[in-house]
Amino acid sequence: MTDKEIELYYRTVLHLVSTAGKVVNEGFLGKKRVETKAGAADLVTEFDQRVEEILIKKLQEEFPTHKFIGEESAASGVKTTFGDDPTWIIDPIDGTTNFVHGFPFVAISIALAIKKQVVIGVIFNPVLDLLYSAVHGKGAFKNGRPIKCSGQTELGLSQVAGEYGSSREPDVLSAKCKNLRVIIEKVHSIRAIGSAAMNLCMVAEGSCDAYFEYGIHIWDYAAGDLIAREAGAYTCDPSGGPLNLLHRCILCTASKELAGQISPLLTHVDFPDD
Amino acid sequence: MTDKEIELYYRTVLHLVSTAGKVVNEGFLGKKRVETKAGAADLVTEFDQRVEEILIKKLQEEFPTHKFIGEESAASGVKTTFGDDPTWIIDPIDGTTNFVHGFPFVAISIALAIKKQVVIGVIFNPVLDLLYSAVHGKGAFKNGRPIKCSGQTELGLSQVAGEYGSSREPDVLSAKCKNLRVIIEKVHSIRAIGSAAMNLCMVAEGSCDAYFEYGIHIWDYAAGDLIAREAGAYTCDPSGGPLNLLHRCILCTASKELAGQISPLLTHVDFPDD
Repeated sequence: MTDKEIELYYRTVLHLVSTAGKVVNEGFLGKKRVETKAGAADLVTEFDQRVEEILIKKLQEEFPTHKFIGEESAASGVKTTFGDDPTWIIDPIDGTTNFVHGFPFVAISIALAIKKQVVIGVIFNPVLDLLYSAVHGKGAFKNGRPIKCSGQTELGLSQVAGEYGSSREPDVLSAKCKNLRVIIEKVHSIRAIGSAAMNLCMVAEGSCDAYFEYGIHIWDYAAGDLIAREAGAYTCDPSGGPLNLLHRCILCTASKELAGQISPLLTHVDFPDD
Repeated sequence: MTDKEIELYYRTVLHLVSTAGKVVNEGFLGKKRVETKAGAADLVTEFDQRVEEILIKKLQEEFPTHKFIGEESAASGVKTTFGDDPTWIIDPIDGTTNFVHGFPFVAISIALAIKKQVVIGVIFNPVLDLLYSAVHGKGAFKNGRPIKCSGQTELGLSQVAGEYGSSREPDVLSAKCKNLRVIIEKVHSIRAIGSAAMNLCMVAEGSCDAYFEYGIHIWDYAAGDLIAREAGAYTCDPSGGPLNLLHRCILCTASKELAGQISPLLTHVDFPDD
Protein backbone atom coordinates (compact mmCIF):
# COMPACT_ATOMS: atom_id res chain seq x y z
CA MET A 1 0.00 0.00 0.00
CA THR A 2 1.53 3.34 -1.04
CA ASP A 3 1.40 6.55 1.00
CA LYS A 4 -0.68 8.03 -1.79
CA GLU A 5 -3.31 5.32 -1.47
CA ILE A 6 -3.42 5.75 2.32
CA GLU A 7 -3.78 9.49 1.79
CA LEU A 8 -6.76 8.87 -0.51
CA TYR A 9 -8.43 6.56 2.03
CA TYR A 10 -7.81 9.12 4.79
CA ARG A 11 -9.28 12.03 2.85
CA THR A 12 -12.27 9.92 1.83
CA VAL A 13 -13.08 8.83 5.37
CA LEU A 14 -12.63 12.35 6.78
CA HIS A 15 -15.15 13.65 4.26
CA LEU A 16 -17.48 10.75 4.97
CA VAL A 17 -17.60 11.16 8.78
CA SER A 18 -18.53 14.76 8.31
CA THR A 19 -21.59 13.70 6.24
CA ALA A 20 -22.47 10.87 8.63
CA GLY A 21 -22.06 13.23 11.60
CA LYS A 22 -25.01 15.27 10.34
CA VAL A 23 -27.24 12.18 10.59
CA VAL A 24 -25.98 11.52 14.14
CA ASN A 25 -26.69 15.11 15.13
CA GLU A 26 -30.16 14.94 13.64
CA GLY A 27 -30.88 11.87 15.78
CA PHE A 28 -29.18 13.22 18.91
CA LEU A 29 -31.78 15.82 19.69
CA GLY A 30 -34.81 14.12 18.17
CA LYS A 31 -36.99 11.17 19.16
CA LYS A 32 -35.63 7.72 18.38
CA ARG A 33 -36.78 4.13 18.58
CA VAL A 34 -34.68 2.38 21.21
CA GLU A 35 -34.26 -1.40 21.21
CA THR A 36 -32.06 -3.72 23.24
CA LYS A 37 -29.48 -6.21 21.94
CA ALA A 38 -27.58 -8.54 24.30
CA GLY A 39 -29.28 -7.21 27.47
CA ALA A 40 -31.46 -4.50 28.99
CA ALA A 41 -28.53 -2.07 29.06
CA ASP A 42 -27.23 -2.85 25.55
CA LEU A 43 -29.09 -0.33 23.41
CA VAL A 44 -29.45 0.30 19.70
CA THR A 45 -31.45 2.81 17.67
CA GLU A 46 -32.43 3.13 14.03
CA PHE A 47 -29.68 5.76 13.73
CA ASP A 48 -26.89 3.26 14.56
CA GLN A 49 -28.09 1.11 11.69
CA ARG A 50 -28.67 4.02 9.30
CA VAL A 51 -25.24 5.58 9.91
CA GLU A 52 -23.48 2.23 9.44
CA GLU A 53 -25.34 1.66 6.16
CA ILE A 54 -24.32 5.09 4.87
CA LEU A 55 -20.67 4.54 5.82
CA ILE A 56 -20.37 1.03 4.35
CA LYS A 57 -22.28 1.92 1.18
CA LYS A 58 -20.07 4.93 0.42
CA LEU A 59 -16.80 3.17 1.23
CA GLN A 60 -17.88 0.16 -0.85
CA GLU A 61 -18.58 2.42 -3.82
CA GLU A 62 -15.15 4.03 -3.51
CA PHE A 63 -13.17 0.90 -2.68
CA PRO A 64 -15.07 -2.13 -4.00
CA THR A 65 -12.39 -4.69 -3.02
CA HIS A 66 -12.25 -3.62 0.63
CA LYS A 67 -13.79 -5.62 3.46
CA PHE A 68 -15.93 -4.41 6.39
CA ILE A 69 -16.48 -5.12 10.06
CA GLY A 70 -19.36 -3.11 11.46
CA GLU A 71 -21.06 -3.17 14.85
CA GLU A 72 -24.58 -3.33 13.50
CA SER A 73 -23.72 -5.79 10.71
CA ALA A 74 -22.23 -8.03 13.43
CA ALA A 75 -25.35 -7.58 15.57
CA SER A 76 -27.52 -8.66 12.62
CA GLY A 77 -25.52 -11.90 12.32
CA VAL A 78 -22.66 -11.07 9.90
CA LYS A 79 -19.61 -13.00 11.15
CA THR A 80 -16.56 -10.86 12.05
CA THR A 81 -13.76 -11.90 9.67
CA PHE A 82 -10.53 -10.04 10.24
CA GLY A 83 -8.13 -10.94 7.44
CA ASP A 84 -5.24 -9.40 5.52
CA ASP A 85 -7.36 -7.46 3.01
CA PRO A 86 -7.92 -3.76 3.61
CA THR A 87 -10.72 -3.81 6.19
CA TRP A 88 -12.80 -0.91 7.48
CA ILE A 89 -13.76 -1.40 11.11
CA ILE A 90 -16.79 0.70 11.92
CA ASP A 91 -18.74 1.74 14.98
CA PRO A 92 -21.44 4.05 13.61
CA ILE A 93 -22.32 5.40 17.08
CA ASP A 94 -19.97 4.58 19.92
CA GLY A 95 -21.79 5.59 23.08
CA THR A 96 -25.30 4.61 22.00
CA THR A 97 -26.56 4.87 25.59
CA ASN A 98 -25.31 8.47 25.65
CA PHE A 99 -26.97 9.02 22.28
CA VAL A 100 -30.28 7.73 23.69
CA HIS A 101 -30.02 9.98 26.76
CA GLY A 102 -28.71 13.08 24.98
CA PHE A 103 -25.35 12.97 26.77
CA PRO A 104 -22.79 14.49 24.42
CA PHE A 105 -20.09 11.78 24.35
CA VAL A 106 -21.03 9.97 21.16
CA ALA A 107 -18.67 9.24 18.31
CA ILE A 108 -18.39 7.69 14.90
CA SER A 109 -15.32 5.46 15.03
CA ILE A 110 -13.68 4.18 11.84
CA ALA A 111 -10.38 2.34 11.42
CA LEU A 112 -8.76 0.96 8.31
CA ALA A 113 -6.62 -2.14 8.85
CA ILE A 114 -4.32 -3.57 6.20
CA LYS A 115 -2.74 -6.94 6.88
CA LYS A 116 -4.40 -6.70 10.30
CA GLN A 117 -2.47 -3.50 11.17
CA VAL A 118 -4.53 -0.37 11.68
CA VAL A 119 -3.18 2.38 9.41
CA ILE A 120 -5.95 4.98 9.73
CA GLY A 121 -8.07 5.90 12.75
CA VAL A 122 -10.81 8.51 12.75
CA ILE A 123 -13.13 9.32 15.66
CA PHE A 124 -15.65 12.08 15.16
CA ASN A 125 -17.93 13.43 17.88
CA PRO A 126 -20.39 15.49 15.85
CA VAL A 127 -22.28 16.78 18.90
CA LEU A 128 -19.21 18.50 20.34
CA ASP A 129 -17.62 18.89 16.89
CA LEU A 130 -14.44 17.06 17.88
CA LEU A 131 -12.51 15.22 15.18
CA TYR A 132 -9.64 12.99 16.33
CA SER A 133 -7.57 11.32 13.63
CA ALA A 134 -4.32 9.55 12.95
CA VAL A 135 -2.44 7.87 10.14
CA HIS A 136 0.17 5.29 11.18
CA GLY A 137 3.51 7.00 11.67
CA LYS A 138 2.22 10.53 11.12
CA GLY A 139 1.03 11.58 14.60
CA ALA A 140 -2.42 12.20 16.05
CA PHE A 141 -4.63 15.23 15.57
CA LYS A 142 -7.67 16.90 17.13
CA ASN A 143 -9.51 19.15 14.71
CA GLY A 144 -6.32 19.29 12.65
CA ARG A 145 -3.96 20.21 15.50
CA PRO A 146 -1.34 17.75 16.80
CA ILE A 147 -2.12 16.18 20.18
CA LYS A 148 0.12 14.46 22.71
CA CYS A 149 -0.73 12.28 25.70
CA SER A 150 0.22 13.51 29.18
CA GLY A 151 3.26 11.25 29.54
CA GLN A 152 2.22 10.67 33.18
CA THR A 153 4.23 7.89 34.85
CA GLU A 154 2.78 7.97 38.39
CA LEU A 155 -0.45 6.20 39.18
CA GLY A 156 -0.99 8.39 42.24
CA LEU A 157 -1.18 11.49 40.07
CA SER A 158 -3.39 9.96 37.38
CA GLN A 159 -6.91 10.52 36.22
CA VAL A 160 -8.24 7.21 34.92
CA ALA A 161 -11.17 6.46 32.60
CA GLY A 162 -13.04 3.31 33.61
CA GLU A 163 -16.47 2.02 32.72
CA TYR A 164 -19.11 -0.42 33.92
CA GLY A 165 -20.15 -1.29 30.36
CA SER A 166 -23.43 -2.90 29.33
CA SER A 167 -23.13 -6.43 30.72
CA ARG A 168 -25.22 -7.01 33.86
CA GLU A 169 -23.82 -10.53 34.35
CA PRO A 170 -23.07 -10.63 38.14
CA ASP A 171 -19.54 -12.10 37.75
CA VAL A 172 -18.61 -9.50 35.14
CA LEU A 173 -20.01 -6.66 37.24
CA SER A 174 -18.21 -7.93 40.35
CA ALA A 175 -14.85 -8.03 38.55
CA LYS A 176 -15.42 -4.57 37.08
CA CYS A 177 -16.44 -3.06 40.42
CA LYS A 178 -13.42 -4.69 42.07
CA ASN A 179 -11.14 -3.18 39.43
CA LEU A 180 -12.63 0.28 39.82
CA ARG A 181 -12.31 0.01 43.61
CA VAL A 182 -8.66 -1.03 43.55
CA ILE A 183 -7.86 1.76 41.10
CA ILE A 184 -9.78 4.56 42.86
CA GLU A 185 -7.82 3.88 46.05
CA LYS A 186 -4.61 4.85 44.28
CA VAL A 187 -5.43 7.64 41.81
CA HIS A 188 -6.62 11.23 41.65
CA SER A 189 -9.91 10.25 40.07
CA ILE A 190 -11.94 7.94 37.88
CA ARG A 191 -14.10 9.27 35.07
CA ALA A 192 -16.77 7.38 33.13
CA ILE A 193 -18.12 9.06 30.02
CA GLY A 194 -19.56 5.96 28.36
CA SER A 195 -17.66 5.79 25.09
CA ALA A 196 -14.56 3.64 24.54
CA ALA A 197 -13.59 5.66 21.48
CA MET A 198 -13.84 8.96 23.36
CA ASN A 199 -11.96 7.51 26.35
CA LEU A 200 -9.04 6.62 24.09
CA CYS A 201 -9.14 10.16 22.68
CA MET A 202 -9.09 11.53 26.26
CA VAL A 203 -5.83 9.63 26.88
CA ALA A 204 -4.52 10.75 23.49
CA GLU A 205 -5.12 14.41 24.27
CA GLY A 206 -3.87 14.15 27.86
CA SER A 207 -7.07 14.82 29.80
CA CYS A 208 -7.00 11.28 31.19
CA ASP A 209 -3.80 9.38 31.92
CA ALA A 210 -5.13 5.86 31.52
CA TYR A 211 -8.15 3.91 30.34
CA PHE A 212 -8.98 0.25 30.67
CA GLU A 213 -12.00 -1.77 29.73
CA TYR A 214 -13.10 -5.36 29.31
CA GLY A 215 -15.97 -6.51 27.11
CA ILE A 216 -15.61 -3.96 24.32
CA HIS A 217 -15.38 -4.94 20.65
CA ILE A 218 -12.88 -4.37 17.85
CA TRP A 219 -15.01 -1.49 16.47
CA ASP A 220 -14.91 0.27 19.84
CA TYR A 221 -11.10 0.49 20.06
CA ALA A 222 -9.41 -0.14 16.69
CA ALA A 223 -9.39 3.55 15.70
CA GLY A 224 -8.78 4.88 19.22
CA ASP A 225 -5.85 2.52 19.78
CA LEU A 226 -4.03 4.01 16.77
CA ILE A 227 -4.92 7.60 17.70
CA ALA A 228 -3.68 7.06 21.26
CA ARG A 229 -0.42 5.42 20.12
CA GLU A 230 0.21 8.13 17.55
CA ALA A 231 -0.25 10.65 20.39
CA GLY A 232 2.51 8.89 22.34
CA ALA A 233 0.35 6.63 24.51
CA TYR A 234 1.04 2.97 25.21
CA THR A 235 -1.59 0.30 24.60
CA CYS A 236 -1.61 -3.35 25.58
CA ASP A 237 -3.82 -6.17 26.73
CA PRO A 238 -4.81 -5.38 30.35
CA SER A 239 -2.91 -8.53 31.35
CA GLY A 240 0.26 -6.82 30.11
CA GLY A 241 0.68 -8.78 26.88
CA PRO A 242 0.42 -7.28 23.41
CA LEU A 243 -2.89 -5.74 22.41
CA ASN A 244 -5.13 -7.98 20.33
CA LEU A 245 -7.98 -6.25 18.52
CA LEU A 246 -10.15 -9.38 18.74
CA HIS A 247 -9.66 -9.99 22.48
CA ARG A 248 -12.27 -7.48 23.58
CA CYS A 249 -10.19 -5.51 26.08
CA ILE A 250 -7.60 -2.75 26.24
CA LEU A 251 -5.33 -0.93 28.65
CA CYS A 252 -4.19 2.42 27.28
CA THR A 253 -1.81 4.58 29.31
CA ALA A 254 0.17 7.78 28.96
CA SER A 255 3.40 5.82 29.52
CA LYS A 256 4.59 2.22 29.61
CA GLU A 257 5.44 2.69 33.32
CA LEU A 258 1.82 3.46 34.09
CA ALA A 259 0.64 0.28 32.33
CA GLY A 260 3.12 -1.63 34.48
CA GLN A 261 1.51 -0.18 37.62
CA ILE A 262 -2.10 -0.75 36.55
CA SER A 263 -1.97 -4.18 34.93
CA PRO A 264 -1.05 -6.17 38.08
CA LEU A 265 -3.94 -4.54 39.97
CA LEU A 266 -6.64 -5.74 37.60
CA THR A 267 -8.89 -8.76 37.86
CA HIS A 268 -9.03 -9.98 34.30
CA VAL A 269 -12.38 -10.67 32.71
CA ASP A 270 -12.66 -13.03 29.76
CA PHE A 271 -15.11 -12.45 26.96
CA PRO A 272 -15.40 -14.64 23.85
CA ASP A 273 -13.24 -13.21 21.03
CA ASP A 274 -14.83 -11.16 18.28
CA MET B 1 -36.48 41.36 48.53
CA THR B 2 -38.20 42.72 45.42
CA ASP B 3 -38.13 41.14 41.97
CA LYS B 4 -36.21 44.17 40.79
CA GLU B 5 -33.46 43.61 43.35
CA ILE B 6 -33.23 39.91 42.43
CA GLU B 7 -33.03 40.93 38.78
CA LEU B 8 -30.12 43.26 39.59
CA TYR B 9 -28.27 40.52 41.50
CA TYR B 10 -28.89 38.09 38.64
CA ARG B 11 -27.60 40.42 35.95
CA THR B 12 -24.56 41.29 38.08
CA VAL B 13 -23.59 37.67 38.66
CA LEU B 14 -24.14 36.71 35.00
CA HIS B 15 -21.76 39.47 33.96
CA LEU B 16 -19.29 38.49 36.65
CA VAL B 17 -19.06 34.77 35.76
CA SER B 18 -18.30 35.75 32.21
CA THR B 19 -15.26 37.77 33.42
CA ALA B 20 -14.19 35.08 35.89
CA GLY B 21 -14.59 32.43 33.18
CA LYS B 22 -11.78 34.06 31.22
CA VAL B 23 -9.42 33.49 34.16
CA VAL B 24 -10.53 29.84 34.40
CA ASN B 25 -9.93 29.34 30.68
CA GLU B 26 -6.51 30.94 30.92
CA GLY B 27 -5.58 28.45 33.66
CA PHE B 28 -7.24 25.47 31.97
CA LEU B 29 -4.73 25.14 29.19
CA GLY B 30 -1.67 26.53 30.96
CA LYS B 31 0.63 25.25 33.67
CA LYS B 32 -0.58 25.52 37.25
CA ARG B 33 0.70 24.88 40.74
CA VAL B 34 -1.25 21.96 42.22
CA GLU B 35 -1.51 21.47 45.97
CA THR B 36 -3.55 19.06 48.07
CA LYS B 37 -6.07 19.93 50.80
CA ALA B 38 -7.79 17.21 52.88
CA GLY B 39 -6.03 14.33 51.09
CA ALA B 40 -3.91 13.26 48.13
CA ALA B 41 -6.92 13.38 45.81
CA ASP B 42 -8.32 16.71 47.09
CA LEU B 43 -6.64 19.23 44.81
CA VAL B 44 -6.44 22.99 44.66
CA THR B 45 -4.61 25.42 42.37
CA GLU B 46 -3.75 29.09 42.50
CA PHE B 47 -6.62 29.63 40.02
CA ASP B 48 -9.26 28.38 42.49
CA GLN B 49 -8.08 31.00 44.96
CA ARG B 50 -7.71 33.77 42.35
CA VAL B 51 -11.16 33.22 40.86
CA GLU B 52 -12.80 33.19 44.30
CA GLU B 53 -11.05 36.44 45.22
CA ILE B 54 -12.25 38.12 42.02
CA LEU B 55 -15.83 36.96 42.58
CA ILE B 56 -16.03 37.95 46.25
CA LYS B 57 -14.28 41.30 45.72
CA LYS B 58 -16.65 42.35 42.91
CA LEU B 59 -19.79 41.17 44.67
CA GLN B 60 -18.68 42.88 47.88
CA GLU B 61 -18.16 46.16 46.01
CA GLU B 62 -21.64 45.91 44.47
CA PHE B 63 -23.46 44.61 47.54
CA PRO B 64 -21.49 45.57 50.67
CA THR B 65 -24.04 44.20 53.16
CA HIS B 66 -24.11 40.71 51.63
CA LYS B 67 -22.38 37.70 53.18
CA PHE B 68 -20.20 35.06 51.55
CA ILE B 69 -19.50 31.36 51.76
CA GLY B 70 -16.64 30.33 49.48
CA GLU B 71 -14.85 27.02 49.03
CA GLU B 72 -11.37 28.49 49.24
CA SER B 73 -12.22 30.88 52.07
CA ALA B 74 -13.52 27.85 54.00
CA ALA B 75 -10.35 25.90 53.13
CA SER B 76 -8.27 28.75 54.51
CA GLY B 77 -10.14 28.58 57.83
CA VAL B 78 -13.10 30.95 57.44
CA LYS B 79 -16.04 29.34 59.28
CA THR B 80 -19.13 28.62 57.16
CA THR B 81 -21.95 30.73 58.60
CA PHE B 82 -25.24 30.29 56.81
CA GLY B 83 -27.70 32.85 58.14
CA ASP B 84 -30.71 34.84 56.96
CA ASP B 85 -28.75 37.66 55.30
CA PRO B 86 -28.32 37.57 51.53
CA THR B 87 -25.42 35.13 51.15
CA TRP B 88 -23.43 34.31 48.05
CA ILE B 89 -22.33 30.68 48.01
CA ILE B 90 -19.35 30.28 45.72
CA ASP B 91 -17.34 27.46 44.23
CA PRO B 92 -14.76 29.20 42.03
CA ILE B 93 -13.84 25.99 40.20
CA ASP B 94 -16.06 22.99 40.73
CA GLY B 95 -14.17 20.03 39.27
CA THR B 96 -10.65 21.13 40.25
CA THR B 97 -9.29 17.65 39.47
CA ASN B 98 -10.68 18.00 35.94
CA PHE B 99 -9.16 21.48 35.77
CA VAL B 100 -5.76 20.05 36.75
CA HIS B 101 -6.01 17.29 34.13
CA GLY B 102 -7.49 19.39 31.34
CA PHE B 103 -10.78 17.47 31.33
CA PRO B 104 -13.47 19.90 30.22
CA PHE B 105 -16.06 19.51 33.01
CA VAL B 106 -15.17 22.48 35.20
CA ALA B 107 -17.60 25.12 36.37
CA ILE B 108 -17.92 28.28 38.36
CA SER B 109 -20.90 27.75 40.66
CA ILE B 110 -22.60 30.67 42.40
CA ALA B 111 -25.83 30.72 44.39
CA LEU B 112 -27.51 33.56 46.22
CA ALA B 113 -29.50 32.54 49.29
CA ILE B 114 -31.85 34.89 51.13
CA LYS B 115 -33.27 33.72 54.46
CA LYS B 116 -31.50 30.43 53.70
CA GLN B 117 -33.51 29.91 50.48
CA VAL B 118 -31.57 29.90 47.24
CA VAL B 119 -33.11 32.45 44.86
CA ILE B 120 -30.42 32.57 42.15
CA GLY B 121 -28.24 29.78 40.78
CA VAL B 122 -25.60 30.24 38.09
CA ILE B 123 -23.23 27.53 36.83
CA PHE B 124 -20.83 28.49 34.07
CA ASN B 125 -18.51 26.07 32.32
CA PRO B 126 -16.21 28.44 30.44
CA VAL B 127 -14.28 25.65 28.71
CA LEU B 128 -17.36 24.33 26.92
CA ASP B 129 -19.08 27.73 27.04
CA LEU B 130 -22.15 26.39 28.83
CA LEU B 131 -24.08 28.74 31.07
CA TYR B 132 -26.81 27.21 33.23
CA SER B 133 -28.90 29.58 35.29
CA ALA B 134 -32.11 29.91 37.26
CA VAL B 135 -34.02 32.39 39.35
CA HIS B 136 -36.48 30.92 41.86
CA GLY B 137 -39.89 30.53 40.22
CA LYS B 138 -38.74 31.59 36.75
CA GLY B 139 -37.46 28.32 35.20
CA ALA B 140 -34.00 27.11 34.29
CA PHE B 141 -31.92 28.05 31.27
CA LYS B 142 -28.91 26.84 29.32
CA ASN B 143 -27.24 29.59 27.34
CA GLY B 144 -30.50 31.52 27.59
CA ARG B 145 -32.80 28.72 26.37
CA PRO B 146 -35.27 27.02 28.72
CA ILE B 147 -34.31 23.50 29.81
CA LYS B 148 -36.40 20.67 31.26
CA CYS B 149 -35.35 17.48 33.00
CA SER B 150 -36.24 14.15 31.36
CA GLY B 151 -39.16 13.37 33.66
CA GLN B 152 -37.99 9.73 33.72
CA THR B 153 -39.85 7.64 36.32
CA GLU B 154 -38.29 4.20 35.73
CA LEU B 155 -34.97 3.33 37.28
CA GLY B 156 -34.38 0.59 34.69
CA LEU B 157 -34.40 3.17 31.89
CA SER B 158 -32.24 5.70 33.69
CA GLN B 159 -28.76 7.08 33.17
CA VAL B 160 -27.36 7.99 36.57
CA ALA B 161 -24.48 10.31 37.52
CA GLY B 162 -22.47 8.98 40.45
CA GLU B 163 -19.01 9.83 41.72
CA TYR B 164 -16.24 8.42 43.90
CA GLY B 165 -15.29 11.88 45.18
CA SER B 166 -11.99 12.81 46.78
CA SER B 167 -12.09 10.97 50.12
CA ARG B 168 -9.90 7.86 50.21
CA GLU B 169 -11.13 6.86 53.66
CA PRO B 170 -11.75 3.07 53.30
CA ASP B 171 -15.23 3.12 54.92
CA VAL B 172 -16.34 6.01 52.75
CA LEU B 173 -14.99 4.35 49.59
CA SER B 174 -16.63 1.04 50.52
CA ALA B 175 -20.03 2.67 50.96
CA LYS B 176 -19.66 4.62 47.72
CA CYS B 177 -18.58 1.54 45.75
CA LYS B 178 -21.48 -0.43 47.25
CA ASN B 179 -23.91 2.30 46.17
CA LEU B 180 -22.54 2.41 42.64
CA ARG B 181 -22.72 -1.40 42.43
CA VAL B 182 -26.33 -1.62 43.60
CA ILE B 183 -27.33 1.14 41.17
CA ILE B 184 -25.45 -0.17 38.11
CA GLU B 185 -27.28 -3.49 38.43
CA LYS B 186 -30.58 -1.75 37.82
CA VAL B 187 -29.96 1.09 35.33
CA HIS B 188 -28.90 1.76 31.75
CA SER B 189 -25.64 3.34 32.82
CA ILE B 190 -23.60 5.31 35.34
CA ARG B 191 -21.59 8.35 34.32
CA ALA B 192 -18.91 10.13 36.35
CA ILE B 193 -17.74 13.47 35.04
CA GLY B 194 -16.22 14.76 38.26
CA SER B 195 -18.24 17.91 38.94
CA ALA B 196 -21.25 18.06 41.25
CA ALA B 197 -22.42 21.32 39.68
CA MET B 198 -22.23 19.89 36.16
CA ASN B 199 -23.95 16.66 37.26
CA LEU B 200 -26.91 18.68 38.55
CA CYS B 201 -26.99 20.53 35.22
CA MET B 202 -26.97 17.16 33.40
CA VAL B 203 -30.12 16.16 35.31
CA ALA B 204 -31.60 19.62 34.68
CA GLU B 205 -31.12 19.35 30.93
CA GLY B 206 -32.22 15.70 30.75
CA SER B 207 -28.98 13.99 29.73
CA CYS B 208 -28.88 12.15 33.07
CA ASP B 209 -31.98 11.07 34.97
CA ALA B 210 -30.51 11.06 38.45
CA TYR B 211 -27.47 12.09 40.44
CA PHE B 212 -26.50 11.32 44.00
CA GLU B 213 -23.42 12.11 46.00
CA TYR B 214 -22.20 12.11 49.59
CA GLY B 215 -19.35 14.26 50.90
CA ILE B 216 -19.92 17.34 48.77
CA HIS B 217 -20.23 20.83 50.20
CA ILE B 218 -22.85 23.58 50.11
CA TRP B 219 -20.87 25.42 47.37
CA ASP B 220 -20.95 22.30 45.17
CA TYR B 221 -24.73 21.96 45.07
CA ALA B 222 -26.52 25.14 46.18
CA ALA B 223 -26.72 26.60 42.65
CA GLY B 224 -27.27 23.25 40.90
CA ASP B 225 -30.08 22.29 43.27
CA LEU B 226 -32.05 25.40 42.25
CA ILE B 227 -31.28 24.97 38.54
CA ALA B 228 -32.38 21.31 38.66
CA ARG B 229 -35.60 22.10 40.55
CA GLU B 230 -36.42 24.97 38.22
CA ALA B 231 -35.97 22.50 35.34
CA GLY B 232 -38.59 20.24 36.92
CA ALA B 233 -36.28 17.88 38.80
CA TYR B 234 -36.79 16.68 42.36
CA THR B 235 -34.08 17.05 44.99
CA CYS B 236 -33.89 15.61 48.49
CA ASP B 237 -31.54 14.19 51.05
CA PRO B 238 -30.45 10.76 49.74
CA SER B 239 -32.19 9.27 52.81
CA GLY B 240 -35.46 10.59 51.36
CA GLY B 241 -35.91 13.53 53.75
CA PRO B 242 -35.84 17.18 52.74
CA LEU B 243 -32.62 18.50 51.22
CA ASN B 244 -30.37 20.35 53.63
CA LEU B 245 -27.66 22.48 52.06
CA LEU B 246 -25.35 21.94 55.04
CA HIS B 247 -25.69 18.14 55.17
CA ARG B 248 -23.14 17.48 52.45
CA CYS B 249 -25.22 15.18 50.25
CA ILE B 250 -27.91 15.26 47.59
CA LEU B 251 -30.17 13.03 45.55
CA CYS B 252 -31.48 14.76 42.46
CA THR B 253 -33.86 12.94 40.13
CA ALA B 254 -35.96 13.63 37.08
CA SER B 255 -39.09 12.69 39.04
CA LYS B 256 -40.15 12.09 42.64
CA GLU B 257 -40.89 8.44 41.70
CA LEU B 258 -37.27 7.92 40.73
CA ALA B 259 -36.03 9.30 44.06
CA GLY B 260 -38.37 6.82 45.77
CA GLN B 261 -36.72 3.97 43.86
CA ILE B 262 -33.12 5.09 44.44
CA SER B 263 -33.18 6.25 48.07
CA PRO B 264 -33.93 2.83 49.65
CA LEU B 265 -31.03 1.27 47.69
CA LEU B 266 -28.37 3.59 49.09
CA THR B 267 -25.99 3.04 51.98
CA HIS B 268 -25.91 6.42 53.65
CA VAL B 269 -22.60 8.04 54.43
CA ASP B 270 -22.33 10.65 57.15
CA PHE B 271 -19.98 13.60 56.85
CA PRO B 272 -19.71 16.40 59.41
CA ASP B 273 -22.01 19.29 58.44
CA ASP B 274 -20.61 22.36 56.70
